[in-house]
Amino acid sequence: MLTQPDMRFRRLRKKGSRDFALACKIVDAARICHVGFCRENQPYVVPMALARDGAGVLLHGSIASRLMKHLAGGLPCCVTVTLLDGLVLARSAFNSSMNYRCVMIFGNALPVTEAGAKIRGLEILTAHLMPGRLAELRPSTRKELNATTLLSLPLKSYTVKVSDGPPDDPARDLAASIWAGVLPLRMKAGKPQPAPDLAAAVAPPKYLRNWTFD
Amino acid sequence: MLTQPDMRFRRLRKKGSRDFALACKIVDAARICHVGFCRENQPYVVPMALARDGAGVLLHGSIASRLMKHLAGGLPCCVTVTLLDGLVLARSAFNSSMNYRCVMIFGNALPVTEAGAKIRGLEILTAHLMPGRLAELRPSTRKELNATTLLSLPLKSYTVKVSDGPPDDPARDLAASIWAGVLPLRMKAGKPQPAPDLAAAVAPPKYLRNWTFD
Repeated sequence: MLTQPDMRFRRLRKKGSRDFALACKIVDAARICHVGFCRENQPYVVPMALARDGAGVLLHGSIASRLMKHLAGGLPCCVTVTLLDGLVLARSAFNSSMNYRCVMIFGNALPVTEAGAKIRGLEILTAHLMPGRLAELRPSTRKELNATTLLSLPLKSYTVKVSDGPPDDPARDLAASIWAGVLPLRMKAGKPQPAPDLAAAVAPPKYLRNWTFD
Repeated sequence: MLTQPDMRFRRLRKKGSRDFALACKIVDAARICHVGFCRENQPYVVPMALARDGAGVLLHGSIASRLMKHLAGGLPCCVTVTLLDGLVLARSAFNSSMNYRCVMIFGNALPVTEAGAKIRGLEILTAHLMPGRLAELRPSTRKELNATTLLSLPLKSYTVKVSDGPPDDPARDLAASIWAGVLPLRMKAGKPQPAPDLAAAVAPPKYLRNWTFD
């Protein structure tokens, strides 16, 4: 029996919101999400690539994928996007924590089947996951499109949680002569590694040097 | 009705394993996981910090947390740890993918209540999440310990998936004069940001400069 997801904020109330612009910003800064679903009360959590298309979140995968079939069949899912922003180093273990931005999206991820919409959705994924790349790649073939399932989950039923700022130590801990603050964390790209079958003449494109994750 | 989790490898069979040492290595390189659970067939996926203690994965949170209460009560969970290692840039969108290491752990996260074991478990978490920090922090008070729930999930029922290596383009795409290869991604620490209430004399400790994520 499907019920409405429980989205009440209980603890750390001040961190929670349903700010749509903020939810979009978090999704747009992420390359992967964690997709949760239930089968006979057994939870499964699977990492997947994602991109946002307006007020929807796009997921894609092989038509042979069990997960994609379940989701396309209307199984309720929870798509969680988390960006770990830093370690909050307080004067005690108890008050130490992490800074993060997180969106939990609830609903049904519905298949996008109309040919034009599907091509457009997959291009949005490519543009988001590999910025600059779309213009260089050949168009997908009909066979490739047919082998891919594209799903769209409405960004409609969601919660946002953000934790940021410095540690908040109680006055009694402030006298300790121990460093306290935030160590920012960020996903960074390293040196591009050419494929073994790449012709030596093909240089790494400019867009690889400027890749950032916000 | 609780059933056994379905852990068969279906697609991309070559990537899957149940290699214990590899599972440990992935957990040890991670700072956060995504915890999934079901309530009336509604999935929830929540990010949490984690650390490994031998053949168990430690989670902690406030005793007031709804999630911690549910988990401590024996609700089946799926703890997924994902490390995004790189973008695999093939000559087509279809063959492009991501390199990653992922462990999905199934089971029940049971409360660690015995005082000595709980203190030790929380110290393992501190040492893992903030290497070098444990030696400097004051011991936790009894009140802090009582306000914290510590859970241990056996690293017993799990699957490992690893995707690595260069793109694998079909021969017909190799003639395209487009760069192909892997863009490695890694979590990196930035410049430590001192807390506003930190005395100017306290310099950032050495261990912050050497923080690495593997």
